Amino acid sequence: MKIIIDVMSGDNAPVENLLGVDKALKQSYSDGVTYILIGDEKAISKTAAEHKLDLSGCEIKHTDLVLTMDDDPMAVMKDKKNSSLGLGLQMLAAGEGDALVSCGNTGALFTGATLIVKRVKGIQRAGIGAILPLTAPFMLIDSGASVKPNEDYMVGFAMMGSAYMKAIYGIDSPRVALLNNGSEEHKGTELQQNTYAKLKENKRINFVGNVEGNGLALGACDVAVSDGFTGNVTLKTIEGMGKLMSKELKGIFKGGLGGMLAYLLVRGKLKKFRKKFDVSEHGGALILGLSKTVVKAHGSSDAKAFANAIRQAVSCVNKNVVDIIAADAAKYAEEKLEAEKKAAESETRAE
Amino acid sequence: MKIIIDVMSGDNAPVENLLGVDKALKQSYSDGVTYILIGDEKAISKTAAEHKLDLSGCEIKHTDLVLTMDDDPMAVMKDKKNSSLGLGLQMLAAGEGDALVSCGNTGALFTGATLIVKRVKGIQRAGIGAILPLTAPFMLIDSGASVKPNEDYMVGFAMMGSAYMKAIYGIDSPRVALLNNGSEEHKGTELQQNTYAKLKENKRINFVGNVEGNGLALGACDVAVSDGFTGNVTLKTIEGMGKLMSKELKGIFKGGLGGMLAYLLVRGKLKKFRKKFDVSEHGGALILGLSKTVVKAHGSSDAKAFANAIRQAVSCVNKNVVDIIAADAAKYAEEKLEAEKKAAESETRAE
Repeated sequence: MKIIIDVMSGDNAPVENLLGVDKALKQSYSDGVTYILIGDEKAISKTAAEHKLDLSGCEIKHTDLVLTMDDDPMAVMKDKKNSSLGLGLQMLAAGEGDALVSCGNTGALFTGATLIVKRVKGIQRAGIGAILPLTAPFMLIDSGASVKPNEDYMVGFAMMGSAYMKAIYGIDSPRVALLNNGSEEHKGTELQQNTYAKLKENKRINFVGNVEGNGLALGACDVAVSDGFTGNVTLKTIEGMGKLMSKELKGIFKGGLGGMLAYLLVRGKLKKFRKKFDVSEHGGALILGLSKTVVKAHGSSDAKAFANAIRQAVSCVNKNVVDIIAADAAKYAEEKLEAEKKAAESETRAE
Repeated sequence: MKIIIDVMSGDNAPVENLLGVDKALKQSYSDGVTYILIGDEKAISKTAAEHKLDLSGCEIKHTDLVLTMDDDPMAVMKDKKNSSLGLGLQMLAAGEGDALVSCGNTGALFTGATLIVKRVKGIQRAGIGAILPLTAPFMLIDSGASVKPNEDYMVGFAMMGSAYMKAIYGIDSPRVALLNNGSEEHKGTELQQNTYAKLKENKRINFVGNVEGNGLALGACDVAVSDGFTGNVTLKTIEGMGKLMSKELKGIFKGGLGGMLAYLLVRGKLKKFRKKFDVSEHGGALILGLSKTVVKAHGSSDAKAFANAIRQAVSCVNKNVVDIIAADAAKYAEEKLEAEKKAAESETRAE
């Protein structure tokens, strides 16, 4: 297996990206995996020397061009096509790797992935699926790409999220819910109302109805389907709450011997508690619906978060997530066609 | 001052509502306030006897009809118009009280308030403003009433939220932000883009640009303006995160002497920590833009939350929030008219 790593994108690149690769290399999931590092050769060797990293097993593809957060997403197709992010996508599309991991500009990664790596047949629009820990890990999809999706996109998000949670988390029949402003069927805007109707009919998923914001944290579903606008605001709200909590929690155990002693007494449990609210614990966000695996790690990823994103990419390849989604989409399209044919036939007979 | 209290609506009515009134009665802010309790006389006396509450200073208006969460919002205008919620609105409109506090059906309360109590001039649509604690208290408006508002409604939400935070929290120039999926001006759907342009022009507020989900928790603004769909999902996500955190936190200090000792050592700080994440700490949600104060307490309010909602209603009346919003809306309308006149004049001259 070959995993392409964009080591130049992200707030802490290339240091944290490379420290992440180093972390990943030490784990058993890296057995039989070759990492292809895309970035400035000099910066890579300098960082490796400074941090005493043994990257000798990795291949390096040189480029000193970086696509930044301020670049227009379309730059990936134009003047920044040979940036680490752009080259990574091209190599992925050309079959030089099985997956790409990048902390880069989400818009550029999504646009480039759609135009260069391309979607699988039957998927009308790729979706960004973020894995959130909380009560139990669940996927929020779409978490930012499609600000105004249509209901067919939403059905695709539901099916892709379901396939992912089954393949990677081993959940037999993932509970798919529609993120909405109430539990009743008629809730939401036209988009939610029309999506609800289509999800209810869909026999390829286990649709459990609407989920409200509080249900997300409390474990009400394994897949939450959303438009990208609401999904993005929700994802970042959860991140912000996690950060605030972590900060405030530190304050509790600070100051004086009492706080320190209390900390020592509950240290183990505190660590577990933190993990529940740490969004980087389960890796990055997936761009699902593509012909190859693309993992978008958080822009501010540290080594641990980046290593988790790498692990996630390896898992996706090992579990054939792309093929499962493609097969699912193809079967769904077939069933839809069949249903339409039958409807047309019965109409003809009625005439 | 007279505050009308719907004691029959809510998951824990009438017990927690009445316990809340009892709590409020013991606070200094209740000096000179008469509470009018609307509900089943028998149930009120029974609860008062059971919990040894002295409600002798309260007026009681009898009705045994209750508008439930399952009722259609329009029921408040029809067969449930004499429910505790409906009667409360009618009495408020008739000038029999200065404010209404209810845990009832949000849709019915909003619809009834708009149709019976009516909006002030210049406000096109009332908005539900929820006060959230977190880094510092801020208002999220609209948090549920207008699933698909237009940009003029959004501008109204911004101005009302700003007026509230200034009057009640004493913030000199509240930072008003637009809840969006990114910080850049062009982000969001057409609604956010058009609203951004209008808020930027508005000289009556201190517009600080877009706020993302994480900024909410981290104190980026005093007023977050949102469509009611996203606002509702965000509000409930924050509530859910607070609940999950509170639950998990308990787990840390449970089990064994170590946990108990740790708890005793940091008890005071833990209490403060919890307050930061307890959405009931600052009362209920306000329905702003009406000719009278209406406070919507959470459906699941306990006595403490209900008392906080009562305190909030008293504050609103004391600080003339309704008048301030009305004056602000009138001035804004005047300025708009003036600007339109000038534009028309300069056009005429140009001809």
